Amino acid sequence: MDWTLNRIAIMHSPCKEKFAVPRQSGLAPGLTGQIEILSPYDRDEAFLALDGFSHIWVLGLFHQSKIEGENIDRTESWQTTVRPPRLGGNKRVGVFASRSPNRPNPISLSVFKLIDISRRANKLFLDVSGTDLVDGTPIIDIKPYLRYADSIPDAQGGYVDLIPKPQLSVVFSDLAAKQCFLLTSSFPARLENLNEQQLQRIIIELIQLDPRPAYKTRQNEQEFGLKLFALNVRFSVNQQQAKVLSLDIKD
Amino acid sequence: MDWTLNRIAIMHSPCKEKFAVPRQSGLAPGLTGQIEILSPYDRDEAFLALDGFSHIWVLGLFHQSKIEGENIDRTESWQTTVRPPRLGGNKRVGVFASRSPNRPNPISLSVFKLIDISRRANKLFLDVSGTDLVDGTPIIDIKPYLRYADSIPDAQGGYVDLIPKPQLSVVFSDLAAKQCFLLTSSFPARLENLNEQQLQRIIIELIQLDPRPAYKTRQNEQEFGLKLFALNVRFSVNQQQAKVLSLDIKD
Repeated sequence: MDWTLNRIAIMHSPCKEKFAVPRQSGLAPGLTGQIEILSPYDRDEAFLALDGFSHIWVLGLFHQSKIEGENIDRTESWQTTVRPPRLGGNKRVGVFASRSPNRPNPISLSVFKLIDISRRANKLFLDVSGTDLVDGTPIIDIKPYLRYADSIPDAQGGYVDLIPKPQLSVVFSDLAAKQCFLLTSSFPARLENLNEQQLQRIIIELIQLDPRPAYKTRQNEQEFGLKLFALNVRFSVNQQQAKVLSLDIKD
Repeated sequence: MDWTLNRIAIMHSPCKEKFAVPRQSGLAPGLTGQIEILSPYDRDEAFLALDGFSHIWVLGLFHQSKIEGENIDRTESWQTTVRPPRLGGNKRVGVFASRSPNRPNPISLSVFKLIDISRRANKLFLDVSGTDLVDGTPIIDIKPYLRYADSIPDAQGGYVDLIPKPQLSVVFSDLAAKQCFLLTSSFPARLENLNEQQLQRIIIELIQLDPRPAYKTRQNEQEFGLKLFALNVRFSVNQQQAKVLSLDIKD
């Protein structure tokens, strides 16, 4: 069955790689992104009345999934089970009982808060928050969130019933704290004009979810790097405490 | 951008045509359907742990949309605006501010109650309720509903903020009431073993939503036909009251 999908938009996100991208939408409310609507879909009237909605569904393509790519016959390459991080990475569930990117049709489903719809440099953008997509994700559909149909507060959900608690407390080293101040004031354009507190908040939101791979043996004091905006954010973890070591701007 | 979509399942629904299919999932709770998982996806382990969830997301292809079809370049055929029935069919909103099937990538998004997962005649079925898909819809993905990420009870929603109220009261003619009893007892297999009350409930749920096209001039006493299971259900509307006239079984 060959259905041609049209890319209607592209996701611009501070998360430049899969590592540390929140595993569902809404988990890092401070994480904002811009959905750039592409031609020929970038017409104001196609979004008429969308600004009345507080939230939108965004369907994308997991272009960095293990079974990514155009024209790939994924009937051969799919896996029947996956190991959700929520189960510690050592228990398997069916791929259709998970939201894993590695699925027969790698379509992502996210609900974002809609902040603004605006035209900048003649391009149409939707500004959103609570994002969980890596930078560059192709977007294939945008739909309004309909509270009466989509919100099911009493839904029961097996192994992922409750909102994940922050796994780690996050502190900044003296160096990292200074860099938060210096970099946001020295390179505002490369950090989307965030101020020091906003940058710190995003870093805390991402690291407290514990982005480390669940299935690997975790060694204390091992260092991890997180690519955010133009930054490489380095941190280490000791027991349940993460320490942000440094923020290096990439050339 | 050509991404090959694999049909992982097919929807079996009592609704045999677009007319009278509920416009969102959950609006007709009595409406059940069966999702038949297709080979090679019909493996028990691919659904392991899904039975712990009360609700599932079902992504399908609007195969009867106006811009339907495989390998169609919908960059040419899409419309920027649509006329939602909720606005009386005479006001336009952007296609991305609607859940209209006629959209650049005709992907449907529904949340169904998961009733059962079982194997019958060596086929794997998910039994669901609250369906809003026409019989035969190709299914491209199934994901668990995650309450903590997907349920936003305080979402605000422009022109469709509240659950649609039943638009019509529904009564049965003497003939139709008798036919509900006779047909369910005489042809149980063709009516999925529903009893008289269950069949009546589904008919009421579908007609009270007022499936008549909003944009057409409505004439009282005009008759409408609704294809449900093997039945043609005829009804008429006078002011806010619908009368079910007859239930004819198709040969």
